[in-house]
Amino acid sequence: MNVAILGATGQNGSSIVDSLLSSTETKFNITALVRPPSLKKPNVVDLQRRGVNVVSFNLADSEDNVTAQLKGIDVLVVCCLLDEVALANAAKKAGVKRYVPCFYASVMPRGVQTLRDNKEAILDHLQRLHLPYTVIDVGWWYQISLPRLPSGRIDRNLFLYNTAIGGNGDVPCARTDSRDVGVYVARIIADPRTLNQKVFAYTDLRTQHQLYDTVERLSGEKIERKYRTADEIDAGIARTKDDPYKMMDYYQFTYQKSYDIMGENTPEYARYLGYQVGKDLYPDLEGISFEDFLKETLETGLKPMYEEHADFLRESSSFVFNGKITTE
Amino acid sequence: MNVAILGATGQNGSSIVDSLLSSTETKFNITALVRPPSLKKPNVVDLQRRGVNVVSFNLADSEDNVTAQLKGIDVLVVCCLLDEVALANAAKKAGVKRYVPCFYASVMPRGVQTLRDNKEAILDHLQRLHLPYTVIDVGWWYQISLPRLPSGRIDRNLFLYNTAIGGNGDVPCARTDSRDVGVYVARIIADPRTLNQKVFAYTDLRTQHQLYDTVERLSGEKIERKYRTADEIDAGIARTKDDPYKMMDYYQFTYQKSYDIMGENTPEYARYLGYQVGKDLYPDLEGISFEDFLKETLETGLKPMYEEHADFLRESSSFVFNGKITTE
Repeated sequence: MNVAILGATGQNGSSIVDSLLSSTETKFNITALVRPPSLKKPNVVDLQRRGVNVVSFNLADSEDNVTAQLKGIDVLVVCCLLDEVALANAAKKAGVKRYVPCFYASVMPRGVQTLRDNKEAILDHLQRLHLPYTVIDVGWWYQISLPRLPSGRIDRNLFLYNTAIGGNGDVPCARTDSRDVGVYVARIIADPRTLNQKVFAYTDLRTQHQLYDTVERLSGEKIERKYRTADEIDAGIARTKDDPYKMMDYYQFTYQKSYDIMGENTPEYARYLGYQVGKDLYPDLEGISFEDFLKETLETGLKPMYEEHADFLRESSSFVFNGKITTE
Repeated sequence: MNVAILGATGQNGSSIVDSLLSSTETKFNITALVRPPSLKKPNVVDLQRRGVNVVSFNLADSEDNVTAQLKGIDVLVVCCLLDEVALANAAKKAGVKRYVPCFYASVMPRGVQTLRDNKEAILDHLQRLHLPYTVIDVGWWYQISLPRLPSGRIDRNLFLYNTAIGGNGDVPCARTDSRDVGVYVARIIADPRTLNQKVFAYTDLRTQHQLYDTVERLSGEKIERKYRTADEIDAGIARTKDDPYKMMDYYQFTYQKSYDIMGENTPEYARYLGYQVGKDLYPDLEGISFEDFLKETLETGLKPMYEEHADFLRESSSFVFNGKITTE
């Protein structure tokens, strides 16, 4: 199976490449489509060393050239921001058999968040093209779900983090270790049952209170629980939605409204929206448990998410904790 | 099962009421929600005579009043144009168990036709409310699929009619006798498998050439086949899309692009969009065949569709044939 991936060195892309490389069930021939200025970057060179076919790819080329580069690809996986309309047009002409648009987030309906609506607009375009597709959502990442500990000992692991519980704290929310995104994607893209479907693949389902309880139990520390009411979240959305400098805050407030207030990031609501659910499709597949992730965080420390975008995120988000900086 | 219907005397509504009344599998208690000015109309009085509970219903009433009127309703079926956002809000508060929005047309993706996109916007609203729903599409009606015969003998049956074949005439298109819409709806709304699903229930699948062949064979008349190319249809869409006086033409061109050029009004494309298909769910259910409909039209004559809106449609559409008038 010939898989091409855009954004192979990013947060999701690298997880996907890792899983495709280590898959024993399906043999994947992996191509990383890389923008010309990035070809010499160390992590791109490293991909090549590990057996990934690295190809220079410029979406600004003529559509004929782009189409020619996509010929022979079975599955095209998008893990970065780019003009997916142009990409999908070329993929259709090239005969790509399955297009995976850049979703990989929590489940929510249309009309709640512009970021999500833009993804849905891409899906609409794929459907106007009659291009075979699979939408994959993975819930919220463990890596950005942890609250601070009073001792400060996991500050080095926090970046985007859990600043307050939304609502009453008793609404279930689906979460996944970001390192498992690729494990799920590798299974889903090789599965004929998921063609032209939306799939919700997640590992853990628990409420905020259950999550805080677990963190307290395993860390042995008592955490002060801060709350953000539904009205405060709505006010936050109203305050940030038209301000490009508050974009990250707007995303965070709208995500939190959806998962903590509306309870939309759950398998029940995903089924209601027409998704297939990963646990139904692959009962044998167990991701990294939240407990194991947390133990590893407490013992070893993990690389914070999005560390490479630290400066941008710190400027545009109230939810970024710069522990990495202050503890060094 | 308590079913309430809005638009019970319209084209689809009356078919649905007929089927609910004659259903033997499920016992339906039927309520027609009727606007106050229409309560005395003969066809509303007739509903009452036939055992339908007729209730005065004004969506402009306070939301509390509207909600109170919807209490106890299991399935709310919408078959007319009205403010579905306000209606759905009240239905959610009233605890309606299944909301059937006003779809009942051919299958197409988003972004092709404003009429369809407005329906999808209602679906989005239902999903933001977490209101249980079922979307039902039925394909194109037999009643508006017939071409004129040279003899003029079915002119009395034609109103919106088949003026030209789109494209090459070899694209399959799903069609249904409008009198069967209710038969399908009655089955679908009593079926737990269709809750929170889109269902495509149709009877006949054939290309325009196959349809013309059948009409020629059963009528014994040779029909001149006129064609409308994809470019002509696109030009028609561009010419009409922003002109409110050409609204019906715009709808017709966009529908025809979807079914005759893009081949979207088919079970294959419906499945691709995530629909369940009526023939898969109810293999025992056979609608009126196109041949039987055509024989009846040739022998007996049928009431043209939308006769009651004749003047409006005649003014706004190039696809209306006023045979009814000229032959009287």
